[in-house]
Amino acid sequence: MAFPTHVRLVEVGPRDGLQNEPEPIGTATKLELIDRLGAAGISYIEAASFVSPKWVPQMADHREVMKNLARRDGITYAALTPNLKGLEAALECGVEEVAVFGAASEAFSQKNINCSVAESLARFEPVLERAKAAGVRVRGYVSTVLGCPYEGEIAPAKVAEVSKALYEMGCYEISLGDTIGTGTPLKAKRMIEAVSRDIPIAKLAAHFHDTYGQALANLYAVLEEGIAVVDSSVAGLGGCPYAKGASGNVASEDVVYLLNGLGIETGIDLDALADTGTWITQAISRPNRSKAGVALAAR
Amino acid sequence: MAFPTHVRLVEVGPRDGLQNEPEPIGTATKLELIDRLGAAGISYIEAASFVSPKWVPQMADHREVMKNLARRDGITYAALTPNLKGLEAALECGVEEVAVFGAASEAFSQKNINCSVAESLARFEPVLERAKAAGVRVRGYVSTVLGCPYEGEIAPAKVAEVSKALYEMGCYEISLGDTIGTGTPLKAKRMIEAVSRDIPIAKLAAHFHDTYGQALANLYAVLEEGIAVVDSSVAGLGGCPYAKGASGNVASEDVVYLLNGLGIETGIDLDALADTGTWITQAISRPNRSKAGVALAAR
Repeated sequence: MAFPTHVRLVEVGPRDGLQNEPEPIGTATKLELIDRLGAAGISYIEAASFVSPKWVPQMADHREVMKNLARRDGITYAALTPNLKGLEAALECGVEEVAVFGAASEAFSQKNINCSVAESLARFEPVLERAKAAGVRVRGYVSTVLGCPYEGEIAPAKVAEVSKALYEMGCYEISLGDTIGTGTPLKAKRMIEAVSRDIPIAKLAAHFHDTYGQALANLYAVLEEGIAVVDSSVAGLGGCPYAKGASGNVASEDVVYLLNGLGIETGIDLDALADTGTWITQAISRPNRSKAGVALAAR
Repeated sequence: MAFPTHVRLVEVGPRDGLQNEPEPIGTATKLELIDRLGAAGISYIEAASFVSPKWVPQMADHREVMKNLARRDGITYAALTPNLKGLEAALECGVEEVAVFGAASEAFSQKNINCSVAESLARFEPVLERAKAAGVRVRGYVSTVLGCPYEGEIAPAKVAEVSKALYEMGCYEISLGDTIGTGTPLKAKRMIEAVSRDIPIAKLAAHFHDTYGQALANLYAVLEEGIAVVDSSVAGLGGCPYAKGASGNVASEDVVYLLNGLGIETGIDLDALADTGTWITQAISRPNRSKAGVALAAR
């Protein structure tokens, strides 16, 4: 057991959290959300996704968002760029860091991005090369690391294999996603142990979903393993596209509350973060899925 | 680290979960809830509270509930009996086991049951004596073990002191309640360590609330300490009377999902439990606060 002394939160609310919202959300609302998150002390914000609006209409204003960010010192504003075209567009908008996403499940890769895992990795190579030439770091996501809606169980060795490929390709950090939230703590520990045989644990992030209410227990278990980067979404924005009405991303407020209790520094003002969660859920008429956020607002 | 191989769930939904519901819930609905919980494999159900209907009107039908239970073999149907009058009434109804409740916080004791902690303990003595004479076991609750809405932090030594008093008075099991859900895993571990210096860990139960989303992480942490009895409420029934709209009791479905993932036996059929959560929340028009329950119902 070796808890980190400091954890970096990667706030994915503006991208992962909003991308499946059916009603269009104004660019101004997105920009205010990003600004409030930065003001609350979040140091890394995934702000947009440079994908085709055909696939993700909610992210169609990615250029406007990236160009009009009120950038604050010390904050990384990143974007998802699944292909070269997306990357070029993101670079034009002055993006500082980008991300690509692969899957640990063949079936999920086929259904989600319409190609095999190997094909998806091959597609990322030119993205990694171009980003490197532009001096932009690339983060790698691996999805379905603790279960797949189509395949069920996923072997830790498969997660390790895909993670290693992305890391060796040049991704500086690998974010391990429990996309459907079916993981439990020992399974999460075993997966982290498998992946960290090839990649230093300081280069791994936990991206856990709370669909079955397990996210915080799983995070606690992998913090014990030394994980020091956690992806989360303010107010638990996002839901789960595989189970209607169910939860998706773990809520940032709940994660910060946990870390505060463990004496782990984050640099984040929990009250300001909770206020942001209250504000955005009211602005887009969504339930606040952060239990800590709801409790803090009700005090 | 020494996980138990088997955990006993104490289902508090019919009592703790329903007692603060403002609209009267029919006795037939309560009886059906208890019966469905038993059918799902729950072996211990807190079925009613023998308190004055002046204080808890929702539990006014405690006699009808206790008398008309469709008792199943191997299931303990218990009742809360804060005083001798309540105990006598419960005994008349054929109760098999009862519970008393104290607090680890002086301020909470004063505001909640209008007497000091010492006075509350003194009041329980005749209850314990009478129960012993009747051959009925008594469970002891200690509330506010990880924080108090009035005092804030609670010293683990204070929790240990009150727990020890109840144990020495004859309570066969002490249920440690994080009444306002403010605990986090290391704090929970330290509290359990303090209490288990005086009381064997097999005689302790974790009664955690999910108000800040921490309950499952806290449970995981104390399972690591060897805790093998967990109190929970189907569908997370109950809410938090100290923060309107916030969560209260941890949901039984989420706990069972966690335990299943850890390979810890419970004897409970998770699907049947989740169906019960869906049914009762629809029957009383309440949100289902079990994330696993919602996800399972949405599959």
